[in-house]
Amino acid sequence: MKFELTILGTSAAVPYHDRWLAGQFLHIQDSYFLIDCGEGTQFRIKELGLKISKVNQIFISHLHGDHCFGLFGVLTSMAINGRTNALTIFSPAGLQEMVEGVFKSTYYQSPFPIHFFAVDTEGGRLLFENQQVSVFSVPLAHRIPTIGFVFKEKPFPLNMRPDKIEEFSIPFTAIKNIKLGADFTSPDGRLISNKELTLPPKKARSFAYCSDTSYLESLITHIKAVSLLYHEATFDHKMADHAAVTGHSTAHQAATIAQKAKVKKLIIGHFSSRYTNLSILLEEAKEVFENTVLGVDKETYVVDI
Amino acid sequence: MKFELTILGTSAAVPYHDRWLAGQFLHIQDSYFLIDCGEGTQFRIKELGLKISKVNQIFISHLHGDHCFGLFGVLTSMAINGRTNALTIFSPAGLQEMVEGVFKSTYYQSPFPIHFFAVDTEGGRLLFENQQVSVFSVPLAHRIPTIGFVFKEKPFPLNMRPDKIEEFSIPFTAIKNIKLGADFTSPDGRLISNKELTLPPKKARSFAYCSDTSYLESLITHIKAVSLLYHEATFDHKMADHAAVTGHSTAHQAATIAQKAKVKKLIIGHFSSRYTNLSILLEEAKEVFENTVLGVDKETYVVDI
Repeated sequence: MKFELTILGTSAAVPYHDRWLAGQFLHIQDSYFLIDCGEGTQFRIKELGLKISKVNQIFISHLHGDHCFGLFGVLTSMAINGRTNALTIFSPAGLQEMVEGVFKSTYYQSPFPIHFFAVDTEGGRLLFENQQVSVFSVPLAHRIPTIGFVFKEKPFPLNMRPDKIEEFSIPFTAIKNIKLGADFTSPDGRLISNKELTLPPKKARSFAYCSDTSYLESLITHIKAVSLLYHEATFDHKMADHAAVTGHSTAHQAATIAQKAKVKKLIIGHFSSRYTNLSILLEEAKEVFENTVLGVDKETYVVDI
Repeated sequence: MKFELTILGTSAAVPYHDRWLAGQFLHIQDSYFLIDCGEGTQFRIKELGLKISKVNQIFISHLHGDHCFGLFGVLTSMAINGRTNALTIFSPAGLQEMVEGVFKSTYYQSPFPIHFFAVDTEGGRLLFENQQVSVFSVPLAHRIPTIGFVFKEKPFPLNMRPDKIEEFSIPFTAIKNIKLGADFTSPDGRLISNKELTLPPKKARSFAYCSDTSYLESLITHIKAVSLLYHEATFDHKMADHAAVTGHSTAHQAATIAQKAKVKKLIIGHFSSRYTNLSILLEEAKEVFENTVLGVDKETYVVDI
């Protein structure tokens, strides 16, 4: 069962050579999500052959242009490619007015319904769930209302032990309940405890997206122990003052959040275009949190435990 | 003296592999213009090293997204790169409201003045001129208010014959007036006619941009004998009915306009993504107007007589 993150852009504010603007494509089991949508997002989606037609939820962290100017093209191209399914877009307030204003100015009417959901910036809200995934908001601290997102797999069922199916002649119809925790009464009347029949379930995986934000300890409880954290690291620690003023983080701060939240792995991104070579940011983060990697445009990251 | 057109995108409606959306960068002598601005325009400008900081006038043909969704990124990136000079944007009515709405929604204030100039669609209006160039509007017929543009060099001065400077001991201070057509009175009182002193001037060059439009004979007078015409050719002639309904042209129609307007050279572009191979469009156009070439993304075309 897939849990894969594809990064579409890692540059802050302006594109820098192959580093484009914020956008991520997330594939969890049977669900596909788009997170942020900077200019060029539709180009990258097309280039990488990602299944944008299967995306029914888009999550926009905040309304700075480098995180949302690609939305107009994504939405209109979805329509040209025949989309009829409804789409829901979660973001801080204001996106609906912007998108509808642009549609009006460009004489455009969407042939598929678009539901805009304005999320408050408190964090911890359940935004969406289906049978496999839940998505929660995370509070962030930027210059304008901004939220992060946590995508969590729902708990997996217990694993049935194949040898016990044979041993106790367990019928196929009973297996579903056993996987959910039920005991089993054999045809001869014996009660077999669930513990004897099953192995622990596969661990549920999770991914948190935190960009853009200053260093913010209050987000830690929301992203505790996630399998993968994407946290912005716009600057290096020598620019900590500038980071604070502009509502951004240093690589050191991103790694500190990862370390305190005990996440399994950290990807840093949203790099300032002042960094030609990103190794300074990676080294800075790894000193605090070893399992850090640089976000790379067009790379796909498998999320595991 | 340069007169060069760089095509940034040749695809209609949606990007198609390397064919991106409408945008052209025009360099005429000391002036730099941007024409249309589909999504991705700022990426192409950066990739090609074009001098966007020197652009003080942008011309937008119409408010369909594939011609203007790149504007937000171009304008905000200009600011990030330190622009302070005023910028004027010419377009049919409605662009100002859209751009200002997006700026408001994204908490953005431009640090440089942007003047929006709403152009009527009659055509033939002088939109801009400086010492070297005049820009006029051209009427087009699309589904929404749409204009084309003609960029014309101003007439060049006569060429002074070097041999005559020596023969008649013409002082340096007199040359400027002679180049503008004045006769010369020699120190010994002889009147030398301008015709004897000069050679014909370099011919002024011109470029017309006509996209998007149905076949429209009334535009011919506006683009008469231009050095280079860019005319949309979204479809081939078998799709003429569809072209008419959607407000587009076939390659045959684009070439017919070129032929009737007696232009020197035609570039066709704005290709539907249904054409993997564009040779069908090129061949169709060349049957009517031999000096036709396909528009190619990222190519620069020298405009000459």
